[in-house]
Amino acid sequence: MTEITQLLSREELERRLYAIGERQYHDLHPFHKLLHGGKLTKGQIQAWALNRFYYQVSIPRKDLTIMSRMDDPALRRAWLQRVLDHDGLGEDGRTDEGKVGGIERWLRLTDGLGLDRDYVVSQEGILPATRYAVDAYVNFVARNSVLEAVASSLTELFAPAIHRERISGFEANYDFANDKTLSYFRKRLDEAPRDVRFGLQYVLDNAVTPAQQRQALAALRFKTELLWAQLDALHHAYVSPGLIPPGAFVPEGVTATEYDR
Amino acid sequence: MTEITQLLSREELERRLYAIGERQYHDLHPFHKLLHGGKLTKGQIQAWALNRFYYQVSIPRKDLTIMSRMDDPALRRAWLQRVLDHDGLGEDGRTDEGKVGGIERWLRLTDGLGLDRDYVVSQEGILPATRYAVDAYVNFVARNSVLEAVASSLTELFAPAIHRERISGFEANYDFANDKTLSYFRKRLDEAPRDVRFGLQYVLDNAVTPAQQRQALAALRFKTELLWAQLDALHHAYVSPGLIPPGAFVPEGVTATEYDR
Repeated sequence: MTEITQLLSREELERRLYAIGERQYHDLHPFHKLLHGGKLTKGQIQAWALNRFYYQVSIPRKDLTIMSRMDDPALRRAWLQRVLDHDGLGEDGRTDEGKVGGIERWLRLTDGLGLDRDYVVSQEGILPATRYAVDAYVNFVARNSVLEAVASSLTELFAPAIHRERISGFEANYDFANDKTLSYFRKRLDEAPRDVRFGLQYVLDNAVTPAQQRQALAALRFKTELLWAQLDALHHAYVSPGLIPPGAFVPEGVTATEYDR
Repeated sequence: MTEITQLLSREELERRLYAIGERQYHDLHPFHKLLHGGKLTKGQIQAWALNRFYYQVSIPRKDLTIMSRMDDPALRRAWLQRVLDHDGLGEDGRTDEGKVGGIERWLRLTDGLGLDRDYVVSQEGILPATRYAVDAYVNFVARNSVLEAVASSLTELFAPAIHRERISGFEANYDFANDKTLSYFRKRLDEAPRDVRFGLQYVLDNAVTPAQQRQALAALRFKTELLWAQLDALHHAYVSPGLIPPGAFVPEGVTATEYDR
């Protein structure tokens, strides 16, 4: 990462934020290439959806942590929409289609993949590395500045492309793809661009010293790393070399890895 | 993990603690088999030592966090030795041989492997997954009971065997093995058994309800998972399939992994 000693222009800061995505957003990861290209078995996709559920369910914890550190009510109000998008709205958050949140939509995906809901929600079979990477995100926004917390959310700049790729890849390649199982990704195509316009504006407005610009760039890099690390762990356990850690989810028809003394 | 509803005898609790090591201590991990069996290149061993340094340097933070939560001065005094063992003693902690701590000893290993000290200490090249797993340990002892924190240290029950295996494996197989580079492991052969006698006694004395026994067992399992996850990350990046995440250490003679759009 180039050292920043002089203040960057808004345009240059924005350019460098995008450059981080170009270099290391997780659309580049081999696991996603396999996933979207129809190269994974159902069991491997189950492992991905199961682990990714822990990320989904943690995102509102992350956003509420950020909000708990904002002292401007207007800013908190602007940020609240993210929590509602994931948790759903009120009593009807699981039934009224317009109010169904992202977490419930993700569970429709795991349902469609044949995973038991109780098992998914229990988080029992997830890879420890998934937990560490996701928890690192929640801890990051608790410990760093609000500017850094907001900057870390800017991977949403790169998300619509991956969601479009995923929808078309799933539809072309997998039996389980239908309106119900893909509704999370379709919904995010509307939500993410709205969120990220706000976040990017906030970062460009508030990173007004070289130190703050460095922090904002480092925060976005940190976020891309933790998305990447989740796929590394899945790839190692379920694709290549296929070493499933003791106690983690074992897809049907797969033998749990035996580790010899 | 079997549910515990009735209080286990001391002997049965001890047996179950050992059974966790039998099932999932990281001596079973393929990376360690390769490391100790002389099957790794110098670059791969560098990657291991570099990443493991972050664990070494974090152990005193972990132990100080535990101590900060103990309200019995006698208990704190008993625990302090661990911090001194790693940090070294006073001004002479880097020079007077008897007072040299584990962190300095680890740096002698990375020196012997040809890694630049400043680079090692900077933590710049470590895998993000290493950071998450190690930080999960520090966070764990900050957030859970002292009993759980002590129980998580009981992987030391299994450590002397792995250190002996490592010393003999390194001596038999690698040029860089000598008294200086192996001094960390030799020293731990004396220190770990002393520490763990105290820790095991504490757990057996203080896990006196079924709930506490469950927590103690879960804490030790948690610890074995985070040691395992560190090797999974190293194995994925540097052995098989050998996908180095963007920005992480690239051994000499190895090409940084290129991720195509």
